[in-house]
Amino acid sequence: MNRIIIKPEEVALGVCDVSLTDDRAEHLRRILKVLPGHSVRVGLLDGPLGLAEVVRVDEESVQLHCRWEDSVPSVPRVDLLLAAPRPKVLKRLWPQLAALGVGSVCITNAEKVERNYFDTHVLDTAFIRAQLIEGLQQCGDTHLPRVTVHRRLKVLLEDELNMEMDTRLRLIAHPIGGARMRGIIQAGNPDRILLAVGPEGGWTEYELALFARHGFTAVSSGARILRSDTACIALLAVLHEELGCSP
Amino acid sequence: MNRIIIKPEEVALGVCDVSLTDDRAEHLRRILKVLPGHSVRVGLLDGPLGLAEVVRVDEESVQLHCRWEDSVPSVPRVDLLLAAPRPKVLKRLWPQLAALGVGSVCITNAEKVERNYFDTHVLDTAFIRAQLIEGLQQCGDTHLPRVTVHRRLKVLLEDELNMEMDTRLRLIAHPIGGARMRGIIQAGNPDRILLAVGPEGGWTEYELALFARHGFTAVSSGARILRSDTACIALLAVLHEELGCSP
Repeated sequence: MNRIIIKPEEVALGVCDVSLTDDRAEHLRRILKVLPGHSVRVGLLDGPLGLAEVVRVDEESVQLHCRWEDSVPSVPRVDLLLAAPRPKVLKRLWPQLAALGVGSVCITNAEKVERNYFDTHVLDTAFIRAQLIEGLQQCGDTHLPRVTVHRRLKVLLEDELNMEMDTRLRLIAHPIGGARMRGIIQAGNPDRILLAVGPEGGWTEYELALFARHGFTAVSSGARILRSDTACIALLAVLHEELGCSP
Repeated sequence: MNRIIIKPEEVALGVCDVSLTDDRAEHLRRILKVLPGHSVRVGLLDGPLGLAEVVRVDEESVQLHCRWEDSVPSVPRVDLLLAAPRPKVLKRLWPQLAALGVGSVCITNAEKVERNYFDTHVLDTAFIRAQLIEGLQQCGDTHLPRVTVHRRLKVLLEDELNMEMDTRLRLIAHPIGGARMRGIIQAGNPDRILLAVGPEGGWTEYELALFARHGFTAVSSGARILRSDTACIALLAVLHEELGCSP
Protein backbone atom coordinates (compact mmCIF):
# COMPACT_ATOMS: atom_id res chain seq x y z
CA MET A 1 0.00 0.00 0.00
CA ASN A 2 1.62 3.18 -1.20
CA ARG A 3 -1.43 5.26 -0.34
CA ILE A 4 -4.29 4.51 2.07
CA ILE A 5 -7.59 4.92 0.24
CA ILE A 6 -10.43 6.32 2.38
CA LYS A 7 -13.99 5.73 1.21
CA PRO A 8 -16.38 8.72 1.16
CA GLU A 9 -18.77 6.90 3.52
CA GLU A 10 -15.96 6.69 6.10
CA VAL A 11 -15.62 10.46 6.53
CA ALA A 12 -18.50 12.63 7.63
CA LEU A 13 -19.04 15.77 5.52
CA GLY A 14 -16.51 18.44 6.43
CA VAL A 15 -14.85 16.22 9.03
CA CYS A 16 -11.23 15.23 8.56
CA ASP A 17 -10.93 12.43 11.10
CA VAL A 18 -11.25 8.78 10.21
CA SER A 19 -10.84 5.63 12.26
CA LEU A 20 -9.57 2.54 10.42
CA THR A 21 -10.06 -0.97 11.76
CA ASP A 22 -9.46 -3.28 8.78
CA ASP A 23 -6.43 -4.39 6.74
CA ARG A 24 -5.43 -0.74 6.30
CA ALA A 25 -5.04 -0.38 10.09
CA GLU A 26 -3.10 -3.65 10.09
CA HIS A 27 -0.81 -2.34 7.33
CA LEU A 28 -0.19 0.93 9.18
CA ARG A 29 0.57 -0.89 12.45
CA ARG A 30 2.55 -3.92 11.25
CA ILE A 31 4.27 -2.82 8.03
CA LEU A 32 4.65 0.93 8.34
CA LYS A 33 4.84 0.72 12.17
CA VAL A 34 3.26 4.17 12.49
CA LEU A 35 3.13 6.10 15.75
CA PRO A 36 1.10 9.19 16.72
CA GLY A 37 2.49 12.21 14.90
CA HIS A 38 3.64 10.28 11.83
CA SER A 39 2.41 11.30 8.37
CA VAL A 40 0.93 8.85 5.86
CA ARG A 41 -0.20 9.32 2.24
CA VAL A 42 -3.97 9.07 1.86
CA GLY A 43 -6.50 9.49 -0.95
CA LEU A 44 -10.27 9.95 -0.89
CA LEU A 45 -11.91 7.46 -3.26
CA ASP A 46 -12.87 9.43 -6.41
CA GLY A 47 -11.58 12.50 -4.59
CA PRO A 48 -8.38 14.37 -3.77
CA LEU A 49 -5.03 13.05 -2.58
CA GLY A 50 -3.88 14.07 0.86
CA LEU A 51 -1.63 13.60 3.84
CA ALA A 52 -2.87 12.30 7.16
CA GLU A 53 -1.42 12.68 10.61
CA VAL A 54 -1.63 9.61 12.81
CA VAL A 55 -3.62 10.66 15.88
CA ARG A 56 -3.89 7.42 17.79
CA VAL A 57 -2.83 3.77 17.40
CA ASP A 58 -4.21 0.91 19.45
CA GLU A 59 -4.95 -2.78 18.94
CA GLU A 60 -8.40 -2.12 17.45
CA SER A 61 -7.88 0.90 15.29
CA VAL A 62 -5.70 3.59 13.80
CA GLN A 63 -7.08 7.13 13.85
CA LEU A 64 -6.02 9.58 11.17
CA HIS A 65 -6.50 13.31 10.73
CA CYS A 66 -6.60 13.95 6.96
CA ARG A 67 -5.68 17.09 5.06
CA TRP A 68 -6.91 16.94 1.47
CA GLU A 69 -5.41 18.71 -1.52
CA ASP A 70 -7.64 21.21 -3.33
CA SER A 71 -7.79 19.42 -6.69
CA VAL A 72 -8.84 15.90 -7.69
CA PRO A 73 -6.52 13.81 -9.95
CA SER A 74 -7.83 13.72 -13.52
CA VAL A 75 -9.68 10.63 -14.74
CA PRO A 76 -7.50 8.25 -16.83
CA ARG A 77 -8.16 8.91 -20.52
CA VAL A 78 -8.55 5.31 -21.70
CA ASP A 79 -11.66 3.13 -21.31
CA LEU A 80 -11.59 -0.61 -21.86
CA LEU A 81 -14.10 -2.88 -23.56
CA LEU A 82 -12.96 -6.39 -22.69
CA ALA A 83 -14.36 -9.77 -23.71
CA ALA A 84 -14.67 -11.69 -20.44
CA PRO A 85 -11.42 -13.58 -19.77
CA ARG A 86 -11.19 -16.76 -17.69
CA PRO A 87 -12.17 -15.87 -14.09
CA LYS A 88 -8.64 -16.70 -12.84
CA VAL A 89 -7.16 -14.21 -15.31
CA LEU A 90 -9.79 -11.52 -14.66
CA LYS A 91 -9.27 -11.80 -10.91
CA ARG A 92 -5.58 -10.97 -11.32
CA LEU A 93 -6.37 -8.22 -13.80
CA TRP A 94 -8.68 -6.01 -11.66
CA PRO A 95 -6.01 -4.45 -9.40
CA GLN A 96 -3.62 -4.10 -12.33
CA LEU A 97 -6.22 -2.20 -14.39
CA ALA A 98 -6.87 0.22 -11.54
CA ALA A 99 -3.12 0.64 -11.01
CA LEU A 100 -2.44 1.40 -14.69
CA GLY A 101 -5.50 3.63 -14.85
CA VAL A 102 -8.73 3.19 -16.80
CA GLY A 103 -11.77 5.44 -16.78
CA SER A 104 -14.25 2.60 -17.18
CA VAL A 105 -14.33 -1.10 -18.02
CA CYS A 106 -17.10 -2.83 -20.00
CA ILE A 107 -16.88 -6.60 -19.63
CA THR A 108 -18.70 -8.19 -22.54
CA ASN A 109 -19.75 -11.55 -23.83
CA ALA A 110 -18.49 -12.74 -27.23
CA GLU A 111 -18.77 -15.81 -29.41
CA LYS A 112 -15.56 -17.33 -28.03
CA VAL A 113 -16.23 -16.53 -24.38
CA GLU A 114 -17.26 -19.61 -22.36
CA ARG A 115 -20.72 -19.13 -20.84
CA ASN A 116 -19.58 -20.11 -17.34
CA TYR A 117 -17.14 -17.18 -17.28
CA PHE A 118 -20.09 -15.06 -16.13
CA ASP A 119 -21.08 -17.32 -13.24
CA THR A 120 -18.25 -16.25 -10.99
CA HIS A 121 -17.62 -14.13 -7.94
CA VAL A 122 -14.93 -12.20 -9.84
CA LEU A 123 -17.81 -10.31 -11.48
CA ASP A 124 -19.53 -9.49 -8.18
CA THR A 125 -19.72 -5.74 -7.58
CA ALA A 126 -18.26 -5.90 -4.06
CA PHE A 127 -15.40 -8.17 -5.14
CA ILE A 128 -14.52 -5.94 -8.09
CA ARG A 129 -14.60 -2.81 -5.94
CA ALA A 130 -12.25 -4.34 -3.35
CA GLN A 131 -9.79 -5.49 -6.04
CA LEU A 132 -9.83 -2.11 -7.78
CA ILE A 133 -9.20 -0.29 -4.50
CA GLU A 134 -6.22 -2.61 -3.89
CA GLY A 135 -4.82 -1.39 -7.23
CA LEU A 136 -5.45 2.26 -6.29
CA GLN A 137 -3.64 1.77 -2.98
CA GLN A 138 -0.69 0.34 -4.94
CA CYS A 139 -0.45 3.08 -7.59
CA GLY A 140 -1.53 6.10 -5.56
CA ASP A 141 -4.50 7.21 -7.70
CA THR A 142 -8.06 7.67 -6.40
CA HIS A 143 -10.22 7.16 -9.52
CA LEU A 144 -12.35 4.04 -9.12
CA PRO A 145 -12.94 2.65 -12.63
CA ARG A 146 -16.63 2.27 -13.50
CA VAL A 147 -17.36 -1.37 -14.33
CA THR A 148 -20.35 -2.67 -16.26
CA VAL A 149 -21.09 -6.21 -17.40
CA HIS A 150 -22.80 -6.88 -20.73
CA ARG A 151 -24.23 -10.22 -21.79
CA ARG A 152 -24.82 -9.24 -25.43
CA LEU A 153 -22.09 -7.63 -27.50
CA LYS A 154 -24.50 -6.52 -30.22
CA VAL A 155 -26.76 -4.68 -27.74
CA LEU A 156 -23.70 -3.15 -26.12
CA LEU A 157 -22.36 -1.81 -29.42
CA GLU A 158 -25.68 -0.80 -30.94
CA ASP A 159 -27.45 0.72 -27.95
CA GLU A 160 -25.60 0.92 -24.68
CA LEU A 161 -22.27 2.27 -25.89
CA ASN A 162 -23.61 5.24 -27.78
CA MET A 163 -25.25 6.78 -24.80
CA GLU A 164 -22.09 7.90 -23.11
CA MET A 165 -19.10 7.24 -25.31
CA ASP A 166 -19.79 9.31 -28.38
CA THR A 167 -16.72 11.45 -28.43
CA ARG A 168 -14.02 8.86 -27.95
CA LEU A 169 -11.59 7.43 -30.45
CA ARG A 170 -12.60 3.78 -30.78
CA LEU A 171 -9.82 1.24 -31.25
CA ILE A 172 -9.90 -2.54 -31.47
CA ALA A 173 -6.70 -4.48 -30.80
CA HIS A 174 -5.91 -7.02 -33.47
CA PRO A 175 -2.55 -8.72 -33.90
CA ILE A 176 -2.96 -9.11 -37.66
CA GLY A 177 -3.45 -6.26 -40.10
CA GLY A 178 -4.07 -3.43 -37.67
CA ALA A 179 -2.55 0.02 -38.13
CA ARG A 180 0.18 1.28 -35.80
CA MET A 181 -1.37 3.01 -32.79
CA ARG A 182 0.85 6.06 -32.97
CA GLY A 183 -0.34 7.17 -36.40
CA ILE A 184 -4.01 6.74 -35.54
CA ILE A 185 -3.71 8.61 -32.26
CA GLN A 186 -1.65 11.47 -33.66
CA ALA A 187 -4.12 11.87 -36.53
CA GLY A 188 -7.18 11.67 -34.28
CA ASN A 189 -5.75 13.71 -31.38
CA PRO A 190 -8.51 12.32 -29.16
CA ASP A 191 -9.58 13.49 -25.75
CA ARG A 192 -10.39 9.93 -24.70
CA ILE A 193 -9.89 6.46 -26.18
CA LEU A 194 -12.09 3.37 -25.97
CA LEU A 195 -10.01 0.21 -26.52
CA ALA A 196 -11.59 -3.17 -27.29
CA VAL A 197 -9.63 -6.31 -26.37
CA GLY A 198 -10.88 -9.72 -27.52
CA PRO A 199 -11.26 -13.13 -25.92
CA GLU A 200 -8.48 -15.76 -25.86
CA GLY A 201 -9.70 -17.27 -29.11
CA GLY A 202 -10.09 -13.87 -30.80
CA TRP A 203 -13.16 -12.11 -32.20
CA THR A 204 -15.13 -13.80 -34.97
CA GLU A 205 -15.38 -12.26 -38.45
CA TYR A 206 -18.96 -11.28 -37.65
CA GLU A 207 -17.88 -9.51 -34.46
CA LEU A 208 -14.99 -7.73 -36.23
CA ALA A 209 -17.45 -6.46 -38.86
CA LEU A 210 -19.80 -5.29 -36.09
CA PHE A 211 -16.97 -3.34 -34.44
CA ALA A 212 -15.98 -1.83 -37.78
CA ARG A 213 -19.59 -0.70 -38.40
CA HIS A 214 -19.57 1.02 -35.03
CA GLY A 215 -16.49 3.07 -35.74
CA PHE A 216 -13.73 0.93 -34.24
CA THR A 217 -10.35 1.12 -36.01
CA ALA A 218 -8.14 -1.99 -35.85
CA VAL A 219 -4.74 -1.30 -34.29
CA SER A 220 -1.81 -3.57 -33.72
CA SER A 221 1.39 -3.39 -31.78
CA GLY A 222 2.94 -6.35 -33.52
CA ALA A 223 2.31 -9.91 -34.57
CA ARG A 224 2.67 -11.46 -31.13
CA ILE A 225 -0.48 -13.04 -29.71
CA LEU A 226 -0.72 -12.10 -26.04
CA ARG A 227 -2.88 -13.57 -23.28
CA SER A 228 -5.73 -11.18 -22.62
CA ASP A 229 -4.38 -9.89 -19.30
CA THR A 230 -0.92 -9.30 -20.77
CA ALA A 231 -2.51 -7.62 -23.80
CA CYS A 232 -4.62 -5.27 -21.65
CA ILE A 233 -1.62 -4.17 -19.59
CA ALA A 234 0.65 -3.77 -22.62
CA LEU A 235 -1.92 -1.83 -24.67
CA LEU A 236 -3.03 0.43 -21.81
CA ALA A 237 0.62 1.27 -21.12
CA VAL A 238 1.29 2.13 -24.76
CA LEU A 239 -1.91 4.19 -25.09
CA HIS A 240 -1.15 6.16 -21.91
CA GLU A 241 2.37 6.79 -23.17
CA GLU A 242 0.99 7.94 -26.53
CA LEU A 243 -1.51 10.24 -24.85
CA GLY A 244 1.34 11.66 -22.80
CA CYS A 245 -0.37 10.47 -19.66
CA SER A 246 1.02 8.48 -16.83
CA PRO A 247 0.30 4.79 -17.12
CA MET B 1 -0.97 -22.76 -27.69
CA ASN B 2 -0.89 -20.69 -30.84
CA ARG B 3 2.31 -22.37 -32.01
CA ILE B 4 3.78 -25.74 -30.99
CA ILE B 5 7.40 -25.23 -29.93
CA ILE B 6 9.74 -28.10 -30.83
CA LYS B 7 13.02 -28.40 -28.92
CA PRO B 8 16.22 -28.93 -30.91
CA GLU B 9 16.93 -32.17 -29.04
CA GLU B 10 13.61 -33.56 -30.32
CA VAL B 11 14.57 -33.41 -33.99
CA ALA B 12 17.58 -35.24 -35.36
CA LEU B 13 19.85 -33.15 -37.61
CA GLY B 14 18.33 -32.77 -41.05
CA VAL B 15 15.25 -34.80 -40.12
CA CYS B 16 11.87 -33.14 -40.22
CA ASP B 17 9.78 -35.67 -38.33
CA VAL B 18 8.97 -35.37 -34.67
CA SER B 19 6.82 -37.43 -32.35
CA LEU B 20 5.13 -35.61 -29.47
CA THR B 21 3.86 -37.40 -26.37
CA ASP B 22 3.40 -34.69 -23.74
CA ASP B 23 0.94 -31.81 -23.19
CA ARG B 24 1.56 -30.63 -26.75
CA ALA B 25 0.18 -33.94 -28.08
CA GLU B 26 -2.73 -33.58 -25.67
CA HIS B 27 -3.41 -30.06 -26.94
CA LEU B 28 -3.31 -31.18 -30.58
CA ARG B 29 -5.66 -34.10 -29.89
CA ARG B 30 -8.15 -32.60 -27.43
CA ILE B 31 -8.26 -28.88 -28.22
CA LEU B 32 -7.29 -28.61 -31.89
CA LYS B 33 -8.71 -32.10 -32.63
CA VAL B 34 -6.16 -32.62 -35.41
CA LEU B 35 -6.33 -35.47 -37.88
CA PRO B 36 -3.71 -36.77 -40.34
CA GLY B 37 -3.25 -34.25 -43.15
CA HIS B 38 -4.04 -31.20 -40.99
CA SER B 39 -1.52 -28.35 -40.76
CA VAL B 40 -0.34 -26.84 -37.47
CA ARG B 41 1.92 -23.88 -36.73
CA VAL B 42 5.27 -24.92 -35.25
CA GLY B 43 8.50 -23.24 -34.21
CA LEU B 44 11.95 -24.63 -33.48
CA LEU B 45 13.19 -23.32 -30.13
CA ASP B 46 15.74 -20.57 -30.93
CA GLY B 47 15.19 -21.42 -34.58
CA PRO B 48 12.82 -20.81 -37.48
CA LEU B 49 9.03 -20.80 -37.58
CA GLY B 50 7.34 -23.43 -39.69
CA LEU B 51 4.27 -25.41 -40.62
CA ALA B 52 3.86 -29.08 -39.79
CA GLU B 53 1.67 -31.68 -41.37
CA VAL B 54 0.05 -34.11 -38.97
CA VAL B 55 1.24 -37.57 -40.05
CA ARG B 56 -0.30 -39.78 -37.41
CA VAL B 57 -2.46 -39.43 -34.29
CA ASP B 58 -2.94 -42.14 -31.68
CA GLU B 59 -3.51 -42.33 -27.94
CA GLU B 60 0.22 -42.18 -27.15
CA SER B 61 1.56 -39.66 -29.59
CA VAL B 62 1.09 -37.19 -32.41
CA GLN B 63 3.59 -37.37 -35.26
CA LEU B 64 4.40 -34.23 -37.22
CA HIS B 65 6.34 -33.60 -40.41
CA CYS B 66 7.80 -30.09 -40.12
CA ARG B 67 8.74 -27.65 -42.87
CA TRP B 68 10.88 -24.82 -41.52
CA GLU B 69 11.14 -21.32 -42.92
CA ASP B 70 14.58 -20.19 -44.12
CA SER B 71 15.06 -17.36 -41.65
CA VAL B 72 14.99 -17.19 -37.85
CA PRO B 73 12.89 -14.46 -36.12
CA SER B 74 15.09 -11.68 -34.80
CA VAL B 75 15.95 -11.57 -31.10
CA PRO B 76 13.80 -9.09 -29.10
CA ARG B 77 15.77 -5.87 -28.65
CA VAL B 78 15.13 -5.30 -24.93
CA ASP B 79 16.93 -7.04 -22.06
CA LEU B 80 15.65 -6.92 -18.50
CA LEU B 81 17.53 -6.52 -15.24
CA LEU B 82 14.96 -7.27 -12.55
CA ALA B 83 15.25 -7.21 -8.77
CA ALA B 84 13.81 -10.57 -7.67
CA PRO B 85 10.06 -10.17 -7.09
CA ARG B 86 8.03 -12.34 -4.71
CA PRO B 87 8.10 -15.94 -6.04
CA LYS B 88 4.34 -15.88 -6.66
CA VAL B 89 4.72 -12.79 -8.84
CA LEU B 90 7.81 -14.07 -10.66
CA LYS B 91 6.09 -17.37 -11.43
CA ARG B 92 3.30 -15.53 -13.24
CA LEU B 93 5.77 -13.25 -14.96
CA TRP B 94 7.95 -15.82 -16.79
CA PRO B 95 5.50 -16.76 -19.56
CA GLN B 96 4.44 -13.12 -19.96
CA LEU B 97 8.05 -11.98 -20.41
CA ALA B 98 8.63 -14.60 -23.11
CA ALA B 99 5.34 -13.65 -24.78
CA LEU B 100 6.15 -9.93 -24.84
CA GLY B 101 9.72 -10.67 -25.92
CA VAL B 102 12.98 -10.12 -24.06
CA GLY B 103 16.48 -11.02 -25.19
CA SER B 104 17.72 -11.88 -21.71
CA VAL B 105 16.68 -11.53 -18.09
CA CYS B 106 19.09 -10.91 -15.19
CA ILE B 107 17.39 -11.57 -11.87
CA THR B 108 19.28 -9.74 -9.15
CA ASN B 109 19.35 -9.30 -5.43
CA ALA B 110 18.86 -5.82 -3.95
CA GLU B 111 18.63 -4.25 -0.52
CA LYS B 112 14.84 -4.49 -0.44
CA VAL B 113 14.60 -8.03 -1.82
CA GLU B 114 13.74 -10.59 0.87
CA ARG B 115 16.49 -13.22 1.17
CA ASN B 116 14.04 -16.13 0.91
CA TYR B 117 12.98 -14.98 -2.57
CA PHE B 118 15.99 -16.90 -3.87
CA ASP B 119 15.12 -20.19 -2.15
CA THR B 120 12.35 -21.10 -4.53
CA HIS B 121 11.63 -23.44 -7.40
CA VAL B 122 10.57 -20.48 -9.55
CA LEU B 123 14.31 -19.83 -10.03
CA ASP B 124 15.09 -23.45 -11.02
CA THR B 125 16.47 -23.65 -14.56
CA ALA B 126 14.05 -26.37 -15.69
CA PHE B 127 11.04 -24.57 -14.23
CA ILE B 128 11.99 -21.28 -15.86
CA ARG B 129 12.56 -22.96 -19.24
CA ALA B 130 9.14 -24.64 -19.14
CA GLN B 131 7.39 -21.38 -18.21
CA LEU B 132 9.20 -19.41 -20.91
CA ILE B 133 8.32 -22.02 -23.54
CA GLU B 134 4.67 -21.71 -22.47
CA GLY B 135 4.93 -18.00 -23.25
CA LEU B 136 6.53 -18.69 -26.64
CA GLN B 137 3.74 -21.13 -27.51
CA GLN B 138 1.25 -18.38 -26.65
CA CYS B 139 2.86 -15.57 -28.64
CA GLY B 140 4.31 -17.50 -31.56
CA ASP B 141 7.98 -16.51 -31.17
CA THR B 142 10.88 -18.98 -30.81
CA HIS B 143 13.54 -16.97 -28.95
CA LEU B 144 14.12 -18.46 -25.50
CA PRO B 145 15.20 -15.59 -23.21
CA ARG B 146 18.56 -16.19 -21.53
CA VAL B 147 18.10 -16.09 -17.75
CA THR B 148 20.85 -15.55 -15.20
CA VAL B 149 20.53 -15.13 -11.43
CA HIS B 150 22.82 -12.78 -9.52
CA ARG B 151 23.15 -12.68 -5.76
CA ARG B 152 25.16 -9.46 -5.64
CA LEU B 153 23.99 -6.37 -7.49
CA LYS B 154 27.36 -4.62 -7.14
CA VAL B 155 29.24 -7.53 -8.70
CA LEU B 156 26.63 -7.74 -11.45
CA LEU B 157 26.98 -4.05 -12.33
CA GLU B 158 30.74 -3.77 -11.89
CA ASP B 159 31.94 -7.03 -13.44
CA GLU B 160 29.37 -9.33 -14.95
CA LEU B 161 27.32 -6.85 -16.93
CA ASN B 162 30.15 -5.29 -18.84
CA MET B 163 31.24 -8.49 -20.44
CA GLU B 164 28.36 -8.72 -22.83
CA MET B 165 26.18 -5.65 -22.61
CA ASP B 166 28.52 -2.86 -23.54
CA THR B 167 26.66 -1.43 -26.47
CA ARG B 168 23.17 -1.15 -25.06
CA LEU B 169 21.27 1.89 -23.91
CA ARG B 170 20.90 1.40 -20.16
CA LEU B 171 17.67 2.60 -18.56
CA ILE B 172 16.41 2.36 -15.01
CA ALA B 173 12.69 2.72 -14.37
CA HIS B 174 11.88 5.20 -11.64
CA PRO B 175 8.44 6.66 -10.98
CA ILE B 176 9.80 9.93 -9.62
CA GLY B 177 12.03 12.31 -11.54
CA GLY B 178 12.88 10.13 -14.53
CA ALA B 179 12.98 11.49 -18.08
CA ARG B 180 10.33 10.51 -20.64
CA MET B 181 11.39 7.35 -22.46
CA ARG B 182 10.63 8.65 -25.92
CA GLY B 183 13.12 11.49 -25.77
CA ILE B 184 15.93 9.30 -24.43
CA ILE B 185 15.36 6.59 -27.02
CA GLN B 186 15.03 8.95 -29.96
CA ALA B 187 18.23 10.74 -28.90
CA GLY B 188 20.15 7.51 -28.30
CA ASN B 189 18.77 5.58 -31.28
CA PRO B 190 19.99 2.35 -29.68
CA ASP B 191 20.30 -1.06 -31.21
CA ARG B 192 19.38 -2.70 -27.93
CA ILE B 193 18.11 -1.53 -24.53
CA LEU B 194 18.81 -2.87 -21.06
CA LEU B 195 16.00 -1.94 -18.67
CA ALA B 196 16.38 -2.19 -14.88
CA VAL B 197 13.21 -2.64 -12.80
CA GLY B 198 13.41 -2.43 -9.02
CA PRO B 199 11.97 -4.40 -6.10
CA GLU B 200 8.54 -3.70 -4.58
CA GLY B 201 10.06 -1.32 -2.03
CA GLY B 202 12.18 0.45 -4.66
CA TRP B 203 15.94 0.78 -5.02
CA THR B 204 17.88 2.44 -2.20
CA GLU B 205 19.74 5.72 -2.74
CA TYR B 206 23.00 3.76 -2.73
CA GLU B 207 21.72 1.43 -5.44
CA LEU B 208 20.42 4.31 -7.55
CA ALA B 209 23.84 5.96 -7.35
CA LEU B 210 25.48 2.67 -8.35
CA PHE B 211 23.22 2.40 -11.41
CA ALA B 212 23.95 6.02 -12.33
CA ARG B 213 27.71 5.39 -12.10
CA HIS B 214 27.29 2.46 -14.48
CA GLY B 215 25.58 4.46 -17.16
CA PHE B 216 21.90 3.89 -16.39
CA THR B 217 19.56 6.80 -17.19
CA ALA B 218 16.43 7.12 -15.04
CA VAL B 219 13.22 7.01 -17.09
CA SER B 220 9.64 7.32 -16.03
CA SER B 221 6.30 6.76 -17.62
CA GLY B 222 4.40 8.61 -14.95
CA ALA B 223 3.97 8.95 -11.24
CA ARG B 224 2.00 5.75 -10.72
CA ILE B 225 3.75 3.10 -8.63
CA LEU B 226 3.17 -0.28 -10.28
CA ARG B 227 3.65 -3.77 -8.90
CA SER B 228 6.83 -5.18 -10.38
CA ASP B 229 5.11 -7.61 -12.76
CA THR B 230 2.74 -4.90 -14.03
CA ALA B 231 5.69 -2.52 -14.39
CA CYS B 232 7.74 -5.04 -16.39
CA ILE B 233 4.90 -5.70 -18.82
CA ALA B 234 3.98 -2.02 -19.19
CA LEU B 235 7.59 -0.87 -19.70
CA LEU B 236 8.52 -3.68 -22.11
CA ALA B 237 5.42 -2.87 -24.17
CA VAL B 238 6.27 0.82 -24.33
CA LEU B 239 9.94 0.16 -25.17
CA HIS B 240 9.03 -2.27 -27.96
CA GLU B 241 6.57 0.27 -29.32
CA GLU B 242 9.21 2.98 -29.17
CA LEU B 243 11.75 0.75 -30.91
CA GLY B 244 9.15 0.05 -33.56
CA CYS B 245 9.21 -3.62 -32.66
CA SER B 246 6.38 -5.91 -31.88
CA PRO B 247 5.70 -6.27 -28.17
